[in-house]
Amino acid sequence: MEVAQVLHMNGGMGESSYANNSLLQQKVLCMTKWVREEAISKLYRDVPRGSLAIADLGCSSGPNTFFVVSEVIKHVERLCLELKIESPQYTIFLNDLPGNDFNNIFKSLESFKHKLNHEIIGGTAPTCFFAGVPGSFYGRLFPHKSLHFVHSSYSLHWLSQVPEGVENNKGNIYMGSTSPPNVFKAYFHQFQRDFSMFLKCRAEEVVEGGYMVLTFLGRKNEDPSSKDGSYIWQLMATALNHMVSEGIIKEEEVDSFNIPYYSASPSEVRREIVKEGSFSINRINVSEVNWDASNEWKPMESEYSESEILVSGDGGYNVAKCMRAVAEPLLLSHFGEDMIEQVFKRYQQILTDRMSKEKTQFVNITVSMTRRSA
Amino acid sequence: MEVAQVLHMNGGMGESSYANNSLLQQKVLCMTKWVREEAISKLYRDVPRGSLAIADLGCSSGPNTFFVVSEVIKHVERLCLELKIESPQYTIFLNDLPGNDFNNIFKSLESFKHKLNHEIIGGTAPTCFFAGVPGSFYGRLFPHKSLHFVHSSYSLHWLSQVPEGVENNKGNIYMGSTSPPNVFKAYFHQFQRDFSMFLKCRAEEVVEGGYMVLTFLGRKNEDPSSKDGSYIWQLMATALNHMVSEGIIKEEEVDSFNIPYYSASPSEVRREIVKEGSFSINRINVSEVNWDASNEWKPMESEYSESEILVSGDGGYNVAKCMRAVAEPLLLSHFGEDMIEQVFKRYQQILTDRMSKEKTQFVNITVSMTRRSA
Repeated sequence: MEVAQVLHMNGGMGESSYANNSLLQQKVLCMTKWVREEAISKLYRDVPRGSLAIADLGCSSGPNTFFVVSEVIKHVERLCLELKIESPQYTIFLNDLPGNDFNNIFKSLESFKHKLNHEIIGGTAPTCFFAGVPGSFYGRLFPHKSLHFVHSSYSLHWLSQVPEGVENNKGNIYMGSTSPPNVFKAYFHQFQRDFSMFLKCRAEEVVEGGYMVLTFLGRKNEDPSSKDGSYIWQLMATALNHMVSEGIIKEEEVDSFNIPYYSASPSEVRREIVKEGSFSINRINVSEVNWDASNEWKPMESEYSESEILVSGDGGYNVAKCMRAVAEPLLLSHFGEDMIEQVFKRYQQILTDRMSKEKTQFVNITVSMTRRSA
Repeated sequence: MEVAQVLHMNGGMGESSYANNSLLQQKVLCMTKWVREEAISKLYRDVPRGSLAIADLGCSSGPNTFFVVSEVIKHVERLCLELKIESPQYTIFLNDLPGNDFNNIFKSLESFKHKLNHEIIGGTAPTCFFAGVPGSFYGRLFPHKSLHFVHSSYSLHWLSQVPEGVENNKGNIYMGSTSPPNVFKAYFHQFQRDFSMFLKCRAEEVVEGGYMVLTFLGRKNEDPSSKDGSYIWQLMATALNHMVSEGIIKEEEVDSFNIPYYSASPSEVRREIVKEGSFSINRINVSEVNWDASNEWKPMESEYSESEILVSGDGGYNVAKCMRAVAEPLLLSHFGEDMIEQVFKRYQQILTDRMSKEKTQFVNITVSMTRRSA
């Protein structure tokens, strides 16, 4: 499986689309807003610039795509008012894998710009240039020293590939309590390779003094077999294993399916950044969010998109839909289209059951860093 | 009708898609190759640069999208070999209106890059960054002085809007021999406004000494009511008028339909460039191409795309399909989906008849110019 060809959030604006099932990602964007604002304030106060090039890596498609962009622009505009300086010319690069629904983003662009212009307080409409950049962030995407601020949320937990040498990960689709030691090692090494490659590429692209704020799913516990980073996938494996025992899926099919994903610990992240050496860490922040994001959280009014995030009162249903919007293309390419409904029906039942009995949370790691001078 | 929202070539890779019906545009790209190569040679010999930013405006989606890009890169690489200098880092901006099928382009990008790397003779694979830029080229698309070479082929004959005040253009859908004088004036003024705005925007974006090569449909005859710029649309009006006389379409529907298009003469083009003043003209070239491009021309092997240009032996059929790929979204938004098949069936018959009786050719105008120093 070529991950870069298969991995993408569900496109369009239909019932299973990412656009309509990305409340969790939106909640996390709100939770980490202060980290981006802190970075942008420092970036802009240090050197007020005539132009600002901003990249959102793994932008996906839907209300969340424009959420960060609009927030960052508004924050810079406020700073300009405060500092009594002219507002910069923005270039916004929206990046995702080539399978992402860029058409959907581009069609919403005009209405986004229109609304943004109305929301800028006390100023004139900012000059913004938008571009879509297809490709994997585990390779170079932008010219040398061309970016001032890089952002990525809920994307870097995806690896560039399923690690090699995990053929004996029987009954699991990710690192699980029953995974043999070589599986943990293989996943960790893949994370190291990928994350250091990511840092190396961005080090080329970000100007000295430029900022990078990354948020991704991780774990608090240093033990990689701990539940906090892998439980959501263990339950998906349970659903698949049920289907094996019912004879609907072959055992080999589940055994040969592993997801290209890694939930790193804060110290694993810190170590790679220090080792690579191009960025200095401003902060690493750990936060938690309920699997069912609609718990104590309402979706914001869908400002920048035709699509709308819908939630039901059933937590298991919401979480299954959220995971489906994210993981369906991966499952589909391995198990085929006929299996999808059944997998997610069982997954939903299992999620509803577990969520009624224990507190289920994702762990987010947010890192803010600055490109060092050479 | 909001032209920027409606106008786009037919997307996807189906039978009516632009990707599969763009032989004419490909032939014209080949015919004008020498003008681009001349410009690129001058640009690069004057100032060999470490980085080259190239924009293709109205790139569409299909084999032709990558045709120009690959040709320009190969030409620069040859120059670098000749001049014994390092090859530059390329940034390629592919622009079209937001309705263009960018997803299709982005999905072909990897295989394009792969093939390009194999074709570069004697060199290593060039470093290329790609971005999609949605938006109208009658507005700003890129930051100040950010482009070295701008190209556009078969796009600038589209106006930003249907001219105002052409309500009395009865029985026509463009300037025709029976159009009243105010219609010719309205179309010409819209061309002037649009083309001067295009030049003004590009003047901001192109570096001093940067080049721009534009090809668009035009006319040789200074008389705007001459057949050479409007005949293809007159025959489409004939098809629509047949449907009016058969009671299938209401007369008012045809009367209120006018296409946002202008076929300029070389001197009209020259006058606008001189008036705007930011660019010096290197050459204005006029060429002709048969309506049925498959006449004495074979489609090149579809190198950079999954889609393939198909041609039949029936010229009228080929031309109708080509025009359908280009104009269907416009007709659809005005006449509705049910009419499309019938319009193009009649249009094909009329085309076949005319093409058997007279020599039918499009007139291309190609302009090469350089951004003056301020």
